Amino acid sequence: MPATVPMRFAIAPSGFKESLTAEAVADAIAAGVRRVVPGAVVDTIPLVDGGEGSAKTLAAATGGDIVEVTVEGPVGRPVASHFAVLGGRGPRTAVVEMAAAAGLRLVPPGERDPGRTCTYGVGQLIRAALDAGCERILVGCGDSGTSDGGAGALRALGMRLLDADGEPVGRGGAVLSSVASLDTSELDPRLASTEILVACNPHNLLTGERGVARVFGPQKGATPEQVERLSEAMDHWAWLLSAHGGLDLSTAAGGGASGGLGAGLAGVLGARLLPRFDVMLNHVDLDARLAMADLVITAEGAIDFQTPRGKVPAEVARRAKKYGRPVIALAGTIGHGAQSSYDAGIDAFAGILAAPIALSEAISQAEQLITDATERALRLIFVGATIGRAEQVSTVSPARRHLSRMK
Amino acid sequence: MPATVPMRFAIAPSGFKESLTAEAVADAIAAGVRRVVPGAVVDTIPLVDGGEGSAKTLAAATGGDIVEVTVEGPVGRPVASHFAVLGGRGPRTAVVEMAAAAGLRLVPPGERDPGRTCTYGVGQLIRAALDAGCERILVGCGDSGTSDGGAGALRALGMRLLDADGEPVGRGGAVLSSVASLDTSELDPRLASTEILVACNPHNLLTGERGVARVFGPQKGATPEQVERLSEAMDHWAWLLSAHGGLDLSTAAGGGASGGLGAGLAGVLGARLLPRFDVMLNHVDLDARLAMADLVITAEGAIDFQTPRGKVPAEVARRAKKYGRPVIALAGTIGHGAQSSYDAGIDAFAGILAAPIALSEAISQAEQLITDATERALRLIFVGATIGRAEQVSTVSPARRHLSRMK
Repeated sequence: MPATVPMRFAIAPSGFKESLTAEAVADAIAAGVRRVVPGAVVDTIPLVDGGEGSAKTLAAATGGDIVEVTVEGPVGRPVASHFAVLGGRGPRTAVVEMAAAAGLRLVPPGERDPGRTCTYGVGQLIRAALDAGCERILVGCGDSGTSDGGAGALRALGMRLLDADGEPVGRGGAVLSSVASLDTSELDPRLASTEILVACNPHNLLTGERGVARVFGPQKGATPEQVERLSEAMDHWAWLLSAHGGLDLSTAAGGGASGGLGAGLAGVLGARLLPRFDVMLNHVDLDARLAMADLVITAEGAIDFQTPRGKVPAEVARRAKKYGRPVIALAGTIGHGAQSSYDAGIDAFAGILAAPIALSEAISQAEQLITDATERALRLIFVGATIGRAEQVSTVSPARRHLSRMK
Repeated sequence: MPATVPMRFAIAPSGFKESLTAEAVADAIAAGVRRVVPGAVVDTIPLVDGGEGSAKTLAAATGGDIVEVTVEGPVGRPVASHFAVLGGRGPRTAVVEMAAAAGLRLVPPGERDPGRTCTYGVGQLIRAALDAGCERILVGCGDSGTSDGGAGALRALGMRLLDADGEPVGRGGAVLSSVASLDTSELDPRLASTEILVACNPHNLLTGERGVARVFGPQKGATPEQVERLSEAMDHWAWLLSAHGGLDLSTAAGGGASGGLGAGLAGVLGARLLPRFDVMLNHVDLDARLAMADLVITAEGAIDFQTPRGKVPAEVARRAKKYGRPVIALAGTIGHGAQSSYDAGIDAFAGILAAPIALSEAISQAEQLITDATERALRLIFVGATIGRAEQVSTVSPARRHLSRMK
């Protein structure tokens, strides 16, 4: 009997929002794989999109460090925050995850008014990264609780926002309508020699019908009137940034990321707005690891109509397909429009739920559910592998040949 | 390009309790199959275990008829009931589904005292089948709301149960303790020339620790005291039946079926107690149809530790494995001990749920959930088929050869 080469799995999930980190999801999937294929080679690649957990995951993936910093949170009270200094070669690089300083989770439900919440703490993290000697700063967007156009972050870095009387305006996004000029004379001078890359969802725009106030305002807690006021404030902010630095960011791809933080950093600091996966995933050598896998398993909290619009499973599928690798996805929830993920290159997907259950219960049992669901999915795949093999070698059941047309 | 023989599916599910008939489940699965394999040959074989829905399903499967009859229900009020006259060759055969006359669903929750509920209506159905000229009667057990040892059914057929004073006793199981003698002088004489087969779960016994009162009494609504009284009544009933006909049914396989209905019919009428699948499934030519399938899909409302103990998916798997056919199972709920179904020959299984949801909501959406889950499971299988084929023909990825050790 010939020696057997072990089957190789690439496990490249996102974290599950409000439940598990990407690492925990990857470990739970790996446990399910080992139940069915004890000798498998299992390569876990926890993935991040710039939002919650990105700094810690990338620090772990590169052998870097987490630096803890207390900053002013989105509603003005201090919060324990952090940024990452990545390991590996190249320029000393920080990952500043905006959600760690101004994420929606840091805004108590009673205070969810995106016209007032503020990214000041994000600027403090950037300043701390400069203090730590970083020459390149990756700013991860996503999961934000703010819509201040990044004005708070810029104030923390030394910029002043003045009204028509030359007085500084207050915090938040709504007041941007009253800003008459930007004073950058006291900006931290180190910024001039620092490369700032903002990891954005390119679908997020600053202004207009698809602008950040209208699309994300409601989920950040804005009433319809607040959405209108905020939308006008963003229009004015786009005008101010254009007048200041000459860049029209009103409909630039990613300008609306994290409540306009992208536009603010681009317009004032010359930060580059880049598709989030290009910024975040290249640090984990994703393509090469997917290319070596016999089967790729990805996962996300929900698979639905948004999946093809820049979510982790779709990005994993896009890259795996370059190398012809089969991709399956696990999901906590299979939502409306999930079938569009087939067009995104996900060959098959499976839900993790076993029984009727409340969301809170599913969240508390998520690791076990993921491990069990992985086992079930792999056993279905192996049923197919048996049929696929039989089709090649058997003349008993020619019907199976039909499978070659499938997929 | 050679002509393609279509892939052949055998779809052999149980009904989902309190939700969908076996026919509806089979149709929902078939719809999912056709989404993924539009040209498939889909053979739907709705299966029954003798319980709810058995008469209608077998009438449909054999081209027989349903005869509607109003009978006395389990709590004494009239209920609309029915039995089936099967089509096909052989002796004229009725299917009397006891649940249609004395099922738990016919007992209002406030009246669930198995010491008082009665199988009188089951005897009326048997009598109606005799009136219809049937020479063979299959009595389907399962889903019963009674524990009267079949005494009510026997009364309806002409037997008298007398106490020590020679007076007839009342209805229900608890009063059996006061029965001193059985008078069968006025039994319907046609019974003597009629073959009666009772489709039982052989695990159901009449008396003892594993007896029907202790195992099923609580789920039929009995309090702990009622369970004790009922258990004593069943002991006494076994003694009476033995004294009457000479058969010791106290621990006979299937004697406890449907609250002792099996024992009563065997002890007084000489009915044969048979494993339910042998009685019910041979009418649908199950084995031959499974043997022709490229893939067998079965289903049940729940897959758990009870599945290998005589549930439909395990029986389907047992038969399919005789012909080496791969079997997958869909389940509304995946419960404790579901993994034991692998040992029962089910190669893989999948839950139907897509999102956190209440049981009532899952029940109301069951058909859609089943169709969608079928699609997902088949797509996983086809991922495996691709890998299985690649393993045979590819030298690019020898790792895949490991799959041949799997399963």
